[in-house]
Amino acid sequence: MNTSVSIFAQVQADIQAVEDLMLAQTHEQHRDLQAALELIVKSGGKRIRPTISLLIGQMLNAPHEKLITIAAAIELLHTATLIHDDLIDGSLLRRGMPTLNSQWSPGSTVLTGDFIFARAAKLAADSDSIPVMKIFSQTLSTIVNGEITQLFSARCQVDRESYYRRIYSKTASLFEISAWSPALISPADETTIDAMRKFGYNIGMAFQIIDDILDFTGDQETIGKPVGNDLRQGLVTLPTLYYIEDHPEEPDILKLSQGNCPDFERVDHLVNQIRTSEAIRKAHQEACQYAERALGYLQTQTDCSERRSLENLANFIVDRDL
Amino acid sequence: MNTSVSIFAQVQADIQAVEDLMLAQTHEQHRDLQAALELIVKSGGKRIRPTISLLIGQMLNAPHEKLITIAAAIELLHTATLIHDDLIDGSLLRRGMPTLNSQWSPGSTVLTGDFIFARAAKLAADSDSIPVMKIFSQTLSTIVNGEITQLFSARCQVDRESYYRRIYSKTASLFEISAWSPALISPADETTIDAMRKFGYNIGMAFQIIDDILDFTGDQETIGKPVGNDLRQGLVTLPTLYYIEDHPEEPDILKLSQGNCPDFERVDHLVNQIRTSEAIRKAHQEACQYAERALGYLQTQTDCSERRSLENLANFIVDRDL
Repeated sequence: MNTSVSIFAQVQADIQAVEDLMLAQTHEQHRDLQAALELIVKSGGKRIRPTISLLIGQMLNAPHEKLITIAAAIELLHTATLIHDDLIDGSLLRRGMPTLNSQWSPGSTVLTGDFIFARAAKLAADSDSIPVMKIFSQTLSTIVNGEITQLFSARCQVDRESYYRRIYSKTASLFEISAWSPALISPADETTIDAMRKFGYNIGMAFQIIDDILDFTGDQETIGKPVGNDLRQGLVTLPTLYYIEDHPEEPDILKLSQGNCPDFERVDHLVNQIRTSEAIRKAHQEACQYAERALGYLQTQTDCSERRSLENLANFIVDRDL
Repeated sequence: MNTSVSIFAQVQADIQAVEDLMLAQTHEQHRDLQAALELIVKSGGKRIRPTISLLIGQMLNAPHEKLITIAAAIELLHTATLIHDDLIDGSLLRRGMPTLNSQWSPGSTVLTGDFIFARAAKLAADSDSIPVMKIFSQTLSTIVNGEITQLFSARCQVDRESYYRRIYSKTASLFEISAWSPALISPADETTIDAMRKFGYNIGMAFQIIDDILDFTGDQETIGKPVGNDLRQGLVTLPTLYYIEDHPEEPDILKLSQGNCPDFERVDHLVNQIRTSEAIRKAHQEACQYAERALGYLQTQTDCSERRSLENLANFIVDRDL
């Protein structure tokens, strides 16, 4: 926790500027829209994506105002996808706060998400960078296509490739753009730009794997969902994939390997088996490797202060709540 | 009808290229997404917006490939807003074809709209023009903010300013960008760019006023909605506004002027009064003035062939189905 405090202190004023710019997007718009955005922005989250953008931007001497603009654009894009996600999943709470769809009609919720997409795109255009615009719209396509694939796919798919593709679409693509776009507006050379992109990709993969572990090991109160919720929903994540590898002969696993979701009365048992198994350690090991790979891409950076903060951030991501 | 045929013949090959580019946006994506986009693109519409873009682009020597890209981006943006609109309104048919939401879950429909937004933004970025990107995202904000305002506003608002604002958000903003963005990527000077923008704005206002007239005078079979549907939904359009001006003392109108929607049993009578009144002619007169103003902005253009086509298009818009 101290680590996270020290990382955030370094960019705290800029994070505030990012939030102010996010909120400014509904000025002069309909007052209900203002209220909705305010509710969402203030319920916050850890702002890990803008923190990455700000640290990399500072490290590479990206122009300050455009850096804030890009960080706000990415966080708004993230916000808009969450609004539509919560509506589609019928989620009533996010980060302990009521979701928009729990209070508003589906129509208002769809349009609020659309409006936030529009403002995110507007901020991305304000970067005056064609490459940023292109990767921004590409990332939106990747995220949405991932959601569509998930919506249309059969449940309980036991396939490592699909898993990596899914967590890239869902999470790592946004981390990738968070690290990549500040480099694109900075005076950095091609090699550095590419290294920052790979830093973002790898740290994002680590982040989602940890999330998937926490779904098994987390405290129900803290994560706000029943333990093993992913598997209960038919979503096979890395801990389950490792467990399947290690216990191919168990009856529940034999069924699962054939694409059959565990029965309602067996799922508690299976979740408990996985959460107390070696699979958790193996998944954590893999997240750790992604984080190390990410940090490898920072090694040529001479700016010690931001590099150290990014290292701390990587450690914070890999160790959070475990 | 002959007019429309001759306009479209001039750009027919390019319209085909625009449609192909629209369809290409789901290649390599989930097959249900492909099928959905195909259904929507093939159910078509008159492609008036891309026709405007293509004619103006040709007239001003915009680079051909980028012109196709921009026209496809705008038409996809339009398509995405229609998908979300139909979902919000619960519409089952559009242009005589089943809507996406009538066949798919709300979640799939929301995401399909989002995906098409994403690809529209991607194509806009492919224009490699920062100004095009900016007006593109601005237009999306305008359209969505207009929809939100309408969703949250009281029904039966009798206010001319709101009416013009609403039809700008809903329709004219997209016509504006259809005329403006080809100019922005062409070698045209500032005066010409501004003139094209105003052409688009005015032709768009004319287009929507005619739509609002057709809601009263059209054949129920052709427009696919009951006559006077807007007023039945509590939406006051230009014919009603003129009727109110001309008959302030009628009991139904007195109620309406105070913001009270006509009772169910009175609305048939009122719709019939309006459709057979002078208000229709006055509204048509106003649409005609918008179209003339639009054409005024073309006068300095020396390229006779495209200018004539745009004049024909303006006439086609003002005279359609009347």
